Amino acid sequence: MPTCRYLTEDGKIEYATFSEGKICPLPHLNDGNFFEPRVPAYSSDETWRNAPPNLLPPTPTPEKVICIGLNYRDHAIETGSEIPSEPVVFSKFNTALVGHGDTIRLPKVSAQVDYEAELVVVIGKTAKHVSGANAMDYVYGYSCGHDVSARDWQKGRPGGQWLLGKTFDTFGPVGPCVVTCAELPDASNVNVRMKLNDETVQNSTTAQLIFDIPTLVAHLSNIVTLKPGDLIFTGTPPGVGAARNPPVFLKNGDVCSVEIEGIGALTNRCEQE
Amino acid sequence: MPTCRYLTEDGKIEYATFSEGKICPLPHLNDGNFFEPRVPAYSSDETWRNAPPNLLPPTPTPEKVICIGLNYRDHAIETGSEIPSEPVVFSKFNTALVGHGDTIRLPKVSAQVDYEAELVVVIGKTAKHVSGANAMDYVYGYSCGHDVSARDWQKGRPGGQWLLGKTFDTFGPVGPCVVTCAELPDASNVNVRMKLNDETVQNSTTAQLIFDIPTLVAHLSNIVTLKPGDLIFTGTPPGVGAARNPPVFLKNGDVCSVEIEGIGALTNRCEQE
Repeated sequence: MPTCRYLTEDGKIEYATFSEGKICPLPHLNDGNFFEPRVPAYSSDETWRNAPPNLLPPTPTPEKVICIGLNYRDHAIETGSEIPSEPVVFSKFNTALVGHGDTIRLPKVSAQVDYEAELVVVIGKTAKHVSGANAMDYVYGYSCGHDVSARDWQKGRPGGQWLLGKTFDTFGPVGPCVVTCAELPDASNVNVRMKLNDETVQNSTTAQLIFDIPTLVAHLSNIVTLKPGDLIFTGTPPGVGAARNPPVFLKNGDVCSVEIEGIGALTNRCEQE
Repeated sequence: MPTCRYLTEDGKIEYATFSEGKICPLPHLNDGNFFEPRVPAYSSDETWRNAPPNLLPPTPTPEKVICIGLNYRDHAIETGSEIPSEPVVFSKFNTALVGHGDTIRLPKVSAQVDYEAELVVVIGKTAKHVSGANAMDYVYGYSCGHDVSARDWQKGRPGGQWLLGKTFDTFGPVGPCVVTCAELPDASNVNVRMKLNDETVQNSTTAQLIFDIPTLVAHLSNIVTLKPGDLIFTGTPPGVGAARNPPVFLKNGDVCSVEIEGIGALTNRCEQE
């Protein structure tokens, strides 16, 4: 079953199985043992209850939040970029991470905060110099991610580095749950959608990825040691606000929902700082 | 006294005061309490012994390794870049961090690994939206850092992001020790040098910084929450290998030593992967 992670009323981190907004606690799981080999997640408490309104990101806080840019062919075209010949890699700091139900804070210093729905890969085992053929052995599972992006900080600044525009606090919602590779055995053609206030503004499938998941994991593992918990935001489909005419940027009260087939819906409300 | 951090023979992390290659263990310090207010570091064991040949980075593993590009006026000029009108910010993953005495592994996939000596700022207290006037209240101290850079991965790649070229494993040596702000009360004009096999190849002072330390801390804190242990690599002086004629790149057996006035010398040997 998919699992989620949240703070209990007394401030402890707890895991639970997660289905349709209901949870069953999994008291044997914690951040320290989450990625250890174990019997499949089960619940000793068969009483399903409502999930808390705010969840944490579903897996232990990662060392790395790796992001891939321009990885959907149509999105590269809509931004006026060339189709990249190798993965474009940037990052967020993990202070950007928030969970399902948390607020996306629109910073005072940006007038161009944009949305990006993304499939997130969760690394499950330490990986260095792995091949594409073996890469999936190192993947634990998948979640929904929202690569919130301040376009006026991402682009047109000295040095051309995207980092700051991508890593304001709360700019990395992940959730609501993580599904394992056993539960989603083929992520190579799943629907990825963004709903902005119930209007579908992005709608594509991971079949459009220029660099597929095994290729990304293998490529990254040739540069850095991937660790359990590391997240890879795999890129966003066409339809981002900055590429619309006129452009659409997030404003106070907007509700964003990343919906991915086989995983669920990650919903966050925007609030002006 | 400056402190250092290392693994004991039984694999435990230990802190010690550090002076001229000698140490006195500080058994009351650990990663969990390192940044807590406490009596100044003292040693209960007055027997100085030789420091281990390999040290760990001197402070607990950070959430963020933030790097500033083109922050010495002369270095911006030597790379043919404009003087930036605001800090150029990129990052390394903390899997890049190694300590004094550790090996810098030159990756097979790069033929242009370059050196960069840098003053590293260590954040001591959580900081968000702090002013330049108050910024130093959030700084714990300073260390020497080496921003190892694969130029052929940093530049000329699709998307123009520097991250991968800066974050190969072992591309972030830090150490040998950390000195507190009380021990180095004015870091605004200290000598920063790189020695490559005993030849001085970079030699400048932090008085040449375009954006000084309080400005950097304040600027970054407007974007992200800075946390205790976060590192800021503050930029490198002129003299990098890529800007030389002919260019100089690191090769198997080269020894790099970052020497900063009032801190010490961070020495690492290069080894071809």
